[in-house]
Amino acid sequence: MADQYAHSGDDKRPTEIPAIRWEEPPEGPVLVLLDQTRLPAEEVELVCTDASALVEAIRSLAVRGAPLLGIAGAYGVALAAVRGFDVEEAAAALAGARPTAVNLAVGVRRAQSAHEAALAKGGDVGQAAATALAAARQLHREDAEASGRMAEHGLALLDELLPGGGHRILTHCNTGSLVSGGEGTAFAVALAAHRTGRLRRLWVDETRPLLQGARLTAYEAARSGMAYTLLTDNAAGSLFAAGEVDAVLIGADRITADGSVANKVGSYPLAVLARYHHVPFIVVAPVTTVDLDTADGASIEVEQRPGHEVTEVTAPQVPVAGVEAGGGIPVAPLGTQAYNPAFDVTPSELVTAIVTEEGVVSPVTAEALAELCARSRRVAAG
Amino acid sequence: MADQYAHSGDDKRPTEIPAIRWEEPPEGPVLVLLDQTRLPAEEVELVCTDASALVEAIRSLAVRGAPLLGIAGAYGVALAAVRGFDVEEAAAALAGARPTAVNLAVGVRRAQSAHEAALAKGGDVGQAAATALAAARQLHREDAEASGRMAEHGLALLDELLPGGGHRILTHCNTGSLVSGGEGTAFAVALAAHRTGRLRRLWVDETRPLLQGARLTAYEAARSGMAYTLLTDNAAGSLFAAGEVDAVLIGADRITADGSVANKVGSYPLAVLARYHHVPFIVVAPVTTVDLDTADGASIEVEQRPGHEVTEVTAPQVPVAGVEAGGGIPVAPLGTQAYNPAFDVTPSELVTAIVTEEGVVSPVTAEALAELCARSRRVAAG
Repeated sequence: MADQYAHSGDDKRPTEIPAIRWEEPPEGPVLVLLDQTRLPAEEVELVCTDASALVEAIRSLAVRGAPLLGIAGAYGVALAAVRGFDVEEAAAALAGARPTAVNLAVGVRRAQSAHEAALAKGGDVGQAAATALAAARQLHREDAEASGRMAEHGLALLDELLPGGGHRILTHCNTGSLVSGGEGTAFAVALAAHRTGRLRRLWVDETRPLLQGARLTAYEAARSGMAYTLLTDNAAGSLFAAGEVDAVLIGADRITADGSVANKVGSYPLAVLARYHHVPFIVVAPVTTVDLDTADGASIEVEQRPGHEVTEVTAPQVPVAGVEAGGGIPVAPLGTQAYNPAFDVTPSELVTAIVTEEGVVSPVTAEALAELCARSRRVAAG
Repeated sequence: MADQYAHSGDDKRPTEIPAIRWEEPPEGPVLVLLDQTRLPAEEVELVCTDASALVEAIRSLAVRGAPLLGIAGAYGVALAAVRGFDVEEAAAALAGARPTAVNLAVGVRRAQSAHEAALAKGGDVGQAAATALAAARQLHREDAEASGRMAEHGLALLDELLPGGGHRILTHCNTGSLVSGGEGTAFAVALAAHRTGRLRRLWVDETRPLLQGARLTAYEAARSGMAYTLLTDNAAGSLFAAGEVDAVLIGADRITADGSVANKVGSYPLAVLARYHHVPFIVVAPVTTVDLDTADGASIEVEQRPGHEVTEVTAPQVPVAGVEAGGGIPVAPLGTQAYNPAFDVTPSELVTAIVTEEGVVSPVTAEALAELCARSRRVAAG
């Protein structure tokens, strides 16, 4: 079961509350999550003492974001093992908590395989549990390291593209430590620029319909002491026209073999604006995001999300009306149909560069991506 | 003072509730307004029996939109005159209800001048009041006629640009009968296409931050029986990429001498997307919108609106929190700064055509606009 405790903003805690952490208090190991559904109004941590509490946290979106879900899944398996629960049952429940989240299943499987392998080698239950936990920690560490390397490569690229410094960077959606074992993807690059004194401003797209930019990226930027400004997605055009954007940095949900980038809806219009204004459009994502099995952008089926995300307004503190489809407050006439794609696809010709932990691909071509993936596999194997 | 009465959706009233109408019940003349602050949830009419009730309605945005404000102002003067109040005092209060709304002051002045002229010619108080009312009605009629002619010219242009028919039109913000004495500007063209069976779909941008698209345009489209779909502003890119947009139709706040178009923020990104996808981008506005005294888009000072429109969520039914800057529910961390321009500027090279009641300007050049304005003045003088 999960316990909650809220923190006030003025206490002595470090600036950054990790999205996830493993703790071992005297009462026994726990997985502590920052409840993202309560941000930015409240910083509330959820303390999971078993896998079912974590399943609930995943389902309620208290923990979210592809890489972070993988790490959470692996820790969840370790938690079940360490606490003496049925590991197979816990793994199945965790992997199914959000069936379409591939990273979640992969993370679960990684800890579970380590656990099985330890038992198969004749280890006792305690040794197997320790092995599962080590696997989760390894995944967590790898993700953090990948973030660090993406930030390094991204910052070097920015310095090359914008030798004058004083970067004004526009970003979309949420790509920081809330979705990562480290500091994220695109946000990690902006953060590296901030730490080296090169970030003049982070422009944060609010990212309708779910407002991840307003709610989460603004929160991350504020916690990091960055100079940031929030805007409605449609105000980005005015910023470009005024010459206020030096580069666009976004993450990616999937990158196809031809270099097409699927990412949160609203990314593609930024790419078109960036091209029109001769501003670099940079995608930051781990190599695992590259999906060589999908040939091109047209092969990606775009998920349509429920219309009520558009026709209703919801916010952490909006009282639930109860009668509407999404539990929010309607802002459009009842019965209004909405077009609500989860993401859009940016063709490679609009992408200046793809930054990964293994290096930068620019110009973005099928050959360069294939080479990157081959190199990454050699590194992993070697 | 103002009286309110709500209508249920299933009664026998005509499909369209006019945004404004003059009525003469036995108790005396009244000005009846559709309260736009309550849309789309409720159709509530405000009955103004004196100018001060109308001033209150203008201040609360129950009545809004440049042309409609002018008409309301003129009727407000007539109402004061007919009901025997001090006309000069009423005119001053009305003109100052929203000081930056030029059309409001112009409408007020028109009825007031008519009233003064009648008195100066030796008319009695009753005759002067009738003259003021006639002037208001004339302004109302002229606006409706201009709408009709814009719709006609716009539809002809669509037929020329899109000979195949089955138009899928994307629009932004609110340009229909809620802001006009007639059926509006861009929306009137879409409505004309609908009535002649040529509208396949109206794509309605929600229009952050104030959601005029979701709240008002969707309401107008629903009332008119159009096939319409609502989308977040940033989802327009996906629609273009999917080939689902045949033309963009928007209104204009101001058109400068060089053909730059100032309109609700979010218009410019649509113009850039339209250009990238070779889709016509059409501006529909009365000739009075053309401001030959402003040389170009760069000369327009863009009004920055309060940040709380972006950092907070408000909707007609959101309970007022009372403590926040804008009385809404915060969706970003407290202290978040926002960039919130009221409108953006689209340069003439991205505008396929400007449709006015006097005809279509395409290509959009300074010469063609100057010629249009000269012709319009000749018509008015002749």
